[in-house]
Amino acid sequence: MGTAILSIGVLGSGKGSNCQSLIDAIAEGRLRARIACVISDVPDALILERARRHGIPAYYLDPAPFKTKLEGEAETRVIETLRAHGVQVVALAGYMRIVKTRLLEAFPQRVLNIHPALLPAFPGMDAWKQALAYGVKVAGCTVHIVDAGTDTGPILLQKTVPVREDDTPDRLHARIQEQEHRAYPEAMQLVAEGRIRLDGRRVRIAPAVL
Amino acid sequence: MGTAILSIGVLGSGKGSNCQSLIDAIAEGRLRARIACVISDVPDALILERARRHGIPAYYLDPAPFKTKLEGEAETRVIETLRAHGVQVVALAGYMRIVKTRLLEAFPQRVLNIHPALLPAFPGMDAWKQALAYGVKVAGCTVHIVDAGTDTGPILLQKTVPVREDDTPDRLHARIQEQEHRAYPEAMQLVAEGRIRLDGRRVRIAPAVL
Repeated sequence: MGTAILSIGVLGSGKGSNCQSLIDAIAEGRLRARIACVISDVPDALILERARRHGIPAYYLDPAPFKTKLEGEAETRVIETLRAHGVQVVALAGYMRIVKTRLLEAFPQRVLNIHPALLPAFPGMDAWKQALAYGVKVAGCTVHIVDAGTDTGPILLQKTVPVREDDTPDRLHARIQEQEHRAYPEAMQLVAEGRIRLDGRRVRIAPAVL
Repeated sequence: MGTAILSIGVLGSGKGSNCQSLIDAIAEGRLRARIACVISDVPDALILERARRHGIPAYYLDPAPFKTKLEGEAETRVIETLRAHGVQVVALAGYMRIVKTRLLEAFPQRVLNIHPALLPAFPGMDAWKQALAYGVKVAGCTVHIVDAGTDTGPILLQKTVPVREDDTPDRLHARIQEQEHRAYPEAMQLVAEGRIRLDGRRVRIAPAVL
């Protein structure tokens, strides 16, 4: 098992740029892992197309009847699909649904998310807009373990982004996304190296083994 | 008036290291201002001793009967003392009282504070302890305009401090204070240069005039 590589399952609803950052990091050797499958709740999401283009099994799983959460039959199908592909870590990547207890218990402390703010500041939707409206001078992104709350789980990694005088929501968002695309592969590589340990709600990162 | 230098009044309750950072920045020419007076609510606070050592008028003003706020007679005396010294900007520097409307109205948008966290995360007491307990990977400090809330006012400047694996509250606090001692003089110099403008709750900083 020592040389086995980490199997990641990705859940996404949109264009999948964070999924692409994982694919690229794997291709470039920065992330010792494989994307085992990609699952979307949106039938024509670009993330599915990206996955197929890279030969990654890609599934649209109908989330009905729920509009904002993953629960019931749909949740069962997602868990079964992830398990069928041997997924060890679930990466939420622009997944626009609240994940519930059953998925979290199926992958304990192994569902990760990336959020476009320096949590605990600005949880929830459109975090970069919240940050700009509040008037912070430093924004950023956070990779965290998903728990039952909204963007409240233990933090694995954060990267900062200075807010500029001429920033618009779109400009700031674009620069935050650049950092997301560095942060998610880096955080995943820490998981892949087995360096993550929970201490209360602090994530302890063991030194790299050379 | 174009060559007049900014007159700062400092309110502090403790050792006054942020006050010292302003004194040092003035001495080194990084901050074009003068400390017009220092006022404390604690009779033997080191901040008063520091001020006297530098020839700055230093006052203990009895805050009685209030324990946690500046109000009533004491507030009147503070405002009068600041005005008597021609103070234009009030710098809270480890001031352990809630300042109320009357002081804020006497110096509109000209009461500043420095807080040991990246606001709006971790307002209130012992912010560095809160940050460490929450498990953030990036901490920092914030210079903001004081408003009626607790650490809620418009943000002038923020500096980040990475949280280390081996951080204790004291170690993290010490590194945050290093950044505070850079941030407060820099923010004050922006005020001294007249580069600060409020746009809703965003602080706009005009380009430097060469």
